[in-house]
Amino acid sequence: MLTTPSDRALVPFVSVENMLALVHRRGLDRCLREITDYIAEDFARWNLFDKTPRVASHSPIGVIELMPTSDGTQYAFKFVNGHPANTKHGLQTVTAFGVLADVGTGYPKLFSEMTLLTALRTAATSALATRTLAPKGAQTVAIIGNGAQSEFQIRALAAVCGFTAFRLYDIDAAATGRCAGNLLALGLSLTACGSVEEAVEGAEVITTCTADKRYQTILTDNLVGAGVHVNAIGGDCPGKTELHRDILLRASVFVEYTEQTRIEGDIQQLDPKHPVTELHDVLAGKAAGRTDAGQITVFDGVGFAIEDFSALRWLADRVSEDAPSDQLDLITDPDDPRDLYGMLLRYAQHTSTNIG
Amino acid sequence: MLTTPSDRALVPFVSVENMLALVHRRGLDRCLREITDYIAEDFARWNLFDKTPRVASHSPIGVIELMPTSDGTQYAFKFVNGHPANTKHGLQTVTAFGVLADVGTGYPKLFSEMTLLTALRTAATSALATRTLAPKGAQTVAIIGNGAQSEFQIRALAAVCGFTAFRLYDIDAAATGRCAGNLLALGLSLTACGSVEEAVEGAEVITTCTADKRYQTILTDNLVGAGVHVNAIGGDCPGKTELHRDILLRASVFVEYTEQTRIEGDIQQLDPKHPVTELHDVLAGKAAGRTDAGQITVFDGVGFAIEDFSALRWLADRVSEDAPSDQLDLITDPDDPRDLYGMLLRYAQHTSTNIG
Repeated sequence: MLTTPSDRALVPFVSVENMLALVHRRGLDRCLREITDYIAEDFARWNLFDKTPRVASHSPIGVIELMPTSDGTQYAFKFVNGHPANTKHGLQTVTAFGVLADVGTGYPKLFSEMTLLTALRTAATSALATRTLAPKGAQTVAIIGNGAQSEFQIRALAAVCGFTAFRLYDIDAAATGRCAGNLLALGLSLTACGSVEEAVEGAEVITTCTADKRYQTILTDNLVGAGVHVNAIGGDCPGKTELHRDILLRASVFVEYTEQTRIEGDIQQLDPKHPVTELHDVLAGKAAGRTDAGQITVFDGVGFAIEDFSALRWLADRVSEDAPSDQLDLITDPDDPRDLYGMLLRYAQHTSTNIG
Repeated sequence: MLTTPSDRALVPFVSVENMLALVHRRGLDRCLREITDYIAEDFARWNLFDKTPRVASHSPIGVIELMPTSDGTQYAFKFVNGHPANTKHGLQTVTAFGVLADVGTGYPKLFSEMTLLTALRTAATSALATRTLAPKGAQTVAIIGNGAQSEFQIRALAAVCGFTAFRLYDIDAAATGRCAGNLLALGLSLTACGSVEEAVEGAEVITTCTADKRYQTILTDNLVGAGVHVNAIGGDCPGKTELHRDILLRASVFVEYTEQTRIEGDIQQLDPKHPVTELHDVLAGKAAGRTDAGQITVFDGVGFAIEDFSALRWLADRVSEDAPSDQLDLITDPDDPRDLYGMLLRYAQHTSTNIG
């Protein structure tokens, strides 16, 4: 580098390596509990946020989305893709990165990988919904779909809600084997099941986290008994659902942000006026959650920008402590802020040539 | 770094330093001409693009915007702020960065500073509009507003359209002095003027590029004579305009993307049905540009996502040649793409500790 950028030019960057190191040093359980708390805090001040459905660019084989939000003091957005066919080419279905910025100046404060961070916040959000809505005394969780998100869901349900028994099913038995193998050392009870029917047997909580980009019926109506709480995580874009609509019609449905979930969630199968409850209203005591033991509750989770905001806010707090980060020379910092051209000119002079 | 990220994990990053080096090595004139050509090429295939007005988050003192677009093969977005009070604190009014991504996989291909790149593409777009709409034989340009964008406007009008005479005015004479001083070595005729009236005297082209975030009348009706071409660049968000509406009513108005310009441009002062022409239609021969020598033409430029797409496409082509870039460890790349947790687990094993 020919010149040294000023502090104002530099933006902290949490690389994949930095994120792995942070989670590893801090402990995954602690990270998941903290992110759950940050999300709960931000959900509690829901009305402060500038909310908008994500901005999606669809193609025949996938989607690229931008998810912005702001609480009036900080602004965050995430870039995230969803390309189910990617795994055939050794690439991931979902990758993400994001930025936290200062509303007062518009300057970015933190740039981060968010593939791992999204996995953490998605699991934390499910745990928050489960802690809020699951029946009292629930002990067993069925995890339907044992892909990239499944271990994080299990770790969060264990760390935040205290579950220790998990029944796993995937159409690909190798995925189930990988999931169980990865979690082997933790002392959890993990049961590999041969069918959805078998997996949901005795489970008070069912989490569906499958990845196909089309209408699926992962859970048929007969598989969901009285009193069960369902986290439907994988139905998260137009044309992609997991639950038979009859389950939704029998259940109390909880969502993050109604306007977005009507488009993207399992409730896209229902009439646009079908009553749903926003989770933050339950957390704030403004709406009822589970009201009786026989009620079926469904958290139709699609992932909302405020959760990414919370995750980035958590990360920025860690970086301002001692979490590892790099510095990106991202922002021009001319001596006189109105003299951008002069910065270019002086760079040229500095290097003894001209800018033609 | 404890592990070496794979190639798939790395995204080329053009830092401020890299961008300065690129422009300096390649020559600013050549860069501006090339970016003008890339924008003209993309405007010529306008219908291929997924177009949406930018997604703005307004606060009392500024705005943060995301500007996405895609041609079905590549996707680009820019993050850009606008905070006029920033200069009081030594910060810039506008900073930006952006990403080019592959629509087929959703993976980012290039991450770049875009404060400098936006200055280049904004100037290139004005030059493209001027080349298309200015009266034949025009020789003199008035530049009203001599802030951070002004030298780039002048360089692009000189490099792309061949103008050599510029008449400068700013309410802050120091800004005019800085602008003229920065351009002194180029052999252009630069005249510092004491008023807007003086600056527009004899000018066949007038470019307004002021920065105040409020309704202004930089150009009153009597100052714009027959046959003049106006680039109104600074009226670019709701509540921010530069031209008296009577000028617009007498002129033929050209815009980038009507839906966005109705909200952000000088034409926000007009009836939403007032006829305007999109510049790309003129370039494609589908609409008339200047039809007679006495006609006033106004390019109501607000900056559109396709121009950023073009600029990033230009930059990616330079990086794939030999332009300087760094590598960001931005994308997780697990051995098995569905085994994100395993990547975290193995990182922990690799470092001989556990992930809690």
